[in-house]
Amino acid sequence: MQRIERIKEFGGWLERYEHESAACQCKMTFSIYLPPQAASGSVPTVYWLSGLTCTDDNVRTKAGAQRYAAELGLALVMPDTSPRGEAVPDVPERYDLGKGAGFYVNATQAPWDTHFQMYRYVTEELPALIEAEFPVIAGARSITGHSMGGHGALICALKNADMYRSVSAFAPICHPSIVPWGEGCFGAYLGEDKNAWAAYDATELVKNGAKLPPCLIDQGTDDEFLAEQLAPEDFAQACAAKQQAVELRRQEGYDHSYHFIASFIGEHLAFHYRHLSA
Amino acid sequence: MQRIERIKEFGGWLERYEHESAACQCKMTFSIYLPPQAASGSVPTVYWLSGLTCTDDNVRTKAGAQRYAAELGLALVMPDTSPRGEAVPDVPERYDLGKGAGFYVNATQAPWDTHFQMYRYVTEELPALIEAEFPVIAGARSITGHSMGGHGALICALKNADMYRSVSAFAPICHPSIVPWGEGCFGAYLGEDKNAWAAYDATELVKNGAKLPPCLIDQGTDDEFLAEQLAPEDFAQACAAKQQAVELRRQEGYDHSYHFIASFIGEHLAFHYRHLSA
Repeated sequence: MQRIERIKEFGGWLERYEHESAACQCKMTFSIYLPPQAASGSVPTVYWLSGLTCTDDNVRTKAGAQRYAAELGLALVMPDTSPRGEAVPDVPERYDLGKGAGFYVNATQAPWDTHFQMYRYVTEELPALIEAEFPVIAGARSITGHSMGGHGALICALKNADMYRSVSAFAPICHPSIVPWGEGCFGAYLGEDKNAWAAYDATELVKNGAKLPPCLIDQGTDDEFLAEQLAPEDFAQACAAKQQAVELRRQEGYDHSYHFIASFIGEHLAFHYRHLSA
Repeated sequence: MQRIERIKEFGGWLERYEHESAACQCKMTFSIYLPPQAASGSVPTVYWLSGLTCTDDNVRTKAGAQRYAAELGLALVMPDTSPRGEAVPDVPERYDLGKGAGFYVNATQAPWDTHFQMYRYVTEELPALIEAEFPVIAGARSITGHSMGGHGALICALKNADMYRSVSAFAPICHPSIVPWGEGCFGAYLGEDKNAWAAYDATELVKNGAKLPPCLIDQGTDDEFLAEQLAPEDFAQACAAKQQAVELRRQEGYDHSYHFIASFIGEHLAFHYRHLSA
């Protein structure tokens, strides 16, 4: 693991690292924000999973999360959205498949299966690395994300009942098996067996009995992708049918952008902080 | 004037406009953030002047200023850094001259003098437009900026004693006449007469008796441009010699980036708010 950047922010440090990933079989990049409190002790960690086309840079630059993390004493871990490099397959004409579009699954289909193991990367390899190398409290983890990364946060929490103290999401892709973004990727990464898709679909996981930790979702009502891609009502209905508590807030007039995220990231981090410090 | 974008953020609205500028003789773009309080009354305005290579987009995306503006009830006006368009001269191989590098002066030298009238644009045309078209309190203005824009904020305040209630800057180019960035632009825009340069140089303006409104400057000690380009000590010495109060804070370990700005923009907006509401 090599540190390639270190920037002071809100009294803490925003750092960027490269490391050889065993899961993805390539060099991976992530950013971490260590709040001022991490200089003198260990802190809880919130993982942020980003959306389509993003790297670790978007959230650290645009979300305004570091201010709240510094106030609350939370580390933020911000992985990339896919494997990278010349050896990694891609479909350059598609922004929603290949590089920048890992969808937080373990691909089983060629040519994707060698490198596109993002689920294993974000739930196993990266937390192990973070908890070995940084002043964080082992096991004190929550997870959040945006759009594709909101989908990622939900499935990581649903598939690992004791791993995260809480989960939240901004405009998550709640039912990928039935929307164009999800269909386009799941078919390529997982093949045509819809049972394989259901294992990475938040709505199907809830239907099949997976348990949620405390969960907060924000969805803008003017989100340009809401009608076609996100399906939060499917997730809410599945949760209601299984008596799984979820707070789904419809935020009037907000869109899908980082301006929406910035407006509510403080409430999300405060929500996670409550569960991480309980 | 035409609105080309409108995004909800922190309960207010981030808007972008295009208009034909008489000062710059081209179409100009600016962004404005109207806080929630502007829906039911008029609010004071803080002008933000951006640095080299920026447009209106950098600050609205990266600074995290809208959260504080929403809390305090301040409008933020974010102009572009130069005239734009095919008719506007440029030196594509130089990031520090031409487009993106207007330096907030009125150019007197060909080929720049037709369009590069950014001083007149930001101190006359734009405030008149803002105060005619938006729910802001006429005359309740403060100004701030970063690097080249910090220079711009200081000279706008120094050259217009009653126009701004307060001024602040992040890592401003304090003495452009004697540093490479300033020399490279002032020679091109203003010609070889150093008296013309002094009229747009914050340190020289103070030496020549210009008065400052309440003034706050933050300068990171690890700023990669500090040694060669910024010269805050020249400005502080000139202010001391003329008994002009200025609070120059050296922020240990911070660099020149928007992560530095984000860390302190809240304190700058609170500073301006105090003077705008006094």
